[in-house]
Amino acid sequence: MIETPYLLFLGDAPDQLAAKVAQGIKDWRPENAVGQFRMEGCKADLGLPDMDLAAAKAAGAKTLVIGVANRGGVISRAWKKVLIAALEEGFDLASGLHNLLRDEADLVAVAEATGRALHDVRVPEVEYPIANGVKRSGKRVLAVGTDCSVGKMYTALALDTAMRERGMKSTFRATGQTGILITGDGVPLDAVVADFMAGSIEWLTPDNDADHWDIIEGQGSLFHVSFSGVTMALIHGGQPDALILCHEPTRAHMRGLPGYTLPTLEVLRDTALPLAQVANPACQVVGIAVNTQHMSRDEATAYLTDLEAEMGLPATDPYRFGAGKLAEALAAL
Amino acid sequence: MIETPYLLFLGDAPDQLAAKVAQGIKDWRPENAVGQFRMEGCKADLGLPDMDLAAAKAAGAKTLVIGVANRGGVISRAWKKVLIAALEEGFDLASGLHNLLRDEADLVAVAEATGRALHDVRVPEVEYPIANGVKRSGKRVLAVGTDCSVGKMYTALALDTAMRERGMKSTFRATGQTGILITGDGVPLDAVVADFMAGSIEWLTPDNDADHWDIIEGQGSLFHVSFSGVTMALIHGGQPDALILCHEPTRAHMRGLPGYTLPTLEVLRDTALPLAQVANPACQVVGIAVNTQHMSRDEATAYLTDLEAEMGLPATDPYRFGAGKLAEALAAL
Repeated sequence: MIETPYLLFLGDAPDQLAAKVAQGIKDWRPENAVGQFRMEGCKADLGLPDMDLAAAKAAGAKTLVIGVANRGGVISRAWKKVLIAALEEGFDLASGLHNLLRDEADLVAVAEATGRALHDVRVPEVEYPIANGVKRSGKRVLAVGTDCSVGKMYTALALDTAMRERGMKSTFRATGQTGILITGDGVPLDAVVADFMAGSIEWLTPDNDADHWDIIEGQGSLFHVSFSGVTMALIHGGQPDALILCHEPTRAHMRGLPGYTLPTLEVLRDTALPLAQVANPACQVVGIAVNTQHMSRDEATAYLTDLEAEMGLPATDPYRFGAGKLAEALAAL
Repeated sequence: MIETPYLLFLGDAPDQLAAKVAQGIKDWRPENAVGQFRMEGCKADLGLPDMDLAAAKAAGAKTLVIGVANRGGVISRAWKKVLIAALEEGFDLASGLHNLLRDEADLVAVAEATGRALHDVRVPEVEYPIANGVKRSGKRVLAVGTDCSVGKMYTALALDTAMRERGMKSTFRATGQTGILITGDGVPLDAVVADFMAGSIEWLTPDNDADHWDIIEGQGSLFHVSFSGVTMALIHGGQPDALILCHEPTRAHMRGLPGYTLPTLEVLRDTALPLAQVANPACQVVGIAVNTQHMSRDEATAYLTDLEAEMGLPATDPYRFGAGKLAEALAAL
């Protein structure tokens, strides 16, 4: 569990895209984002107050989050200076970088001396159990995709917002690095050892109030041969009551797999639902989230209207049109 | 890669069952089993020559394999004495124990001093790639089960034997601890990090002659919620041309999951085949392997005859009746 709120470290980001983790935190958990820390030459700007460490500390920030990708996979001397000063100032550090904070001897030494925590969200900090498949109380919804990177995290976060707006009880459950940094906790599922994958998701979504929804961030795709095992573990460990199908209609082939075409939404439904019903016989497919970023507004609207008629399910682009339809479908379950 | 042949260490095994790893090596790779090493009080006997370290060394043994489960998960002082003497004598050590050889400071020190290797087959020794899904040459067959522990490893090893007897080119590809110790190499799939599961199986079953078969050891089950992600990674990473369905007809519920019933063989076929065809559109289900150990011989024969008629596939118990039918089904593909 990472202590919030955060000071968002943008470093010397070469462009806005490099700061997409920080952007995600600001978009989805603005209450966690006290300010931004930019170094000389930084080309990203979240529109948050620029703060030095002392100002952020005074404003209540507890953790400096590295919200930017580093160049060449190396934590530079210039970054180090800021990170070490942050530890000295009383901040914890949190990072989703491939090269881990804990592998940097100077950071480890200063963190120990100052009693601060180093959170590397790429690697599990918990010993997860093996899944036992026992039915849990409360409800769960999982986004499953025709492919990787079709908007499953975005859909889940937008759904969480829409449900809260309607007074429903919901919790976004992060299963990837960005989601974990946004919310402060979760399971870095792609880094979990095979035998414990499903168990980690049971651990992440424990017993809860009967009317509470865990919104589980999806990963991979049953149809993506590199990562389908991870998706399978989410479907069985998550015990979902509801599935949301996610799709990006203009993609020519599976992400990173030129020889592989995407399945249709019908095939995704007919594959994912029976597998989900192994763990939860009551599971239903309740809606569709489409990433229409490569379509005009008119094209997107027409596509969604046709899709609703064809599939008999509410369909939306949560980014363009909100996730209200999906929240209502869950409320009606 | 573990150097063969082996001296099989049975330690102070309390009964024959405790030595089942050693038994598997002797049954399936007798040419790897030079002799057995038994300590005082050992209640297991493989019927191999009893040898001390010097005799086994003289007979050509390269590795001392711990072929027995230890009590309480601790490597005892009495065992240590033998293991250290073996290292001094020039043996490598190999183990599938949960507590690792590499975590024992004395073994590590002596192995370093003597230049010998410690193989803990529970943990990967390789950095596996992420799967790329590119079609590989050669053929592959995978055993998939209605449940865990229904005889998938046994089926694969028996099939390998039957194929070699027929002059077919085949290689058993181990994906679990016992299989790895039997053959000397493989992937400990349940210990691989999620993102690399499918890639580890691609690595294990590389390009090969067009008429060569990799016989991939199955793990878990698509219907076992604790381990289904591992099975999924085998199906997509393995790119099988052929599936063999494995079943144990008398089991009342899924292994370790009292609330879960087994799927039928029809449901297993209809679930596994379309998923396998994502990675290899030519994949077919070619046969059925049934573990009939809890049925009389007459019951087993009647069951298999009915099953062949119902499913339209050759069905056998490889242990009781051999795997010839399955080898012939593969030869006919």
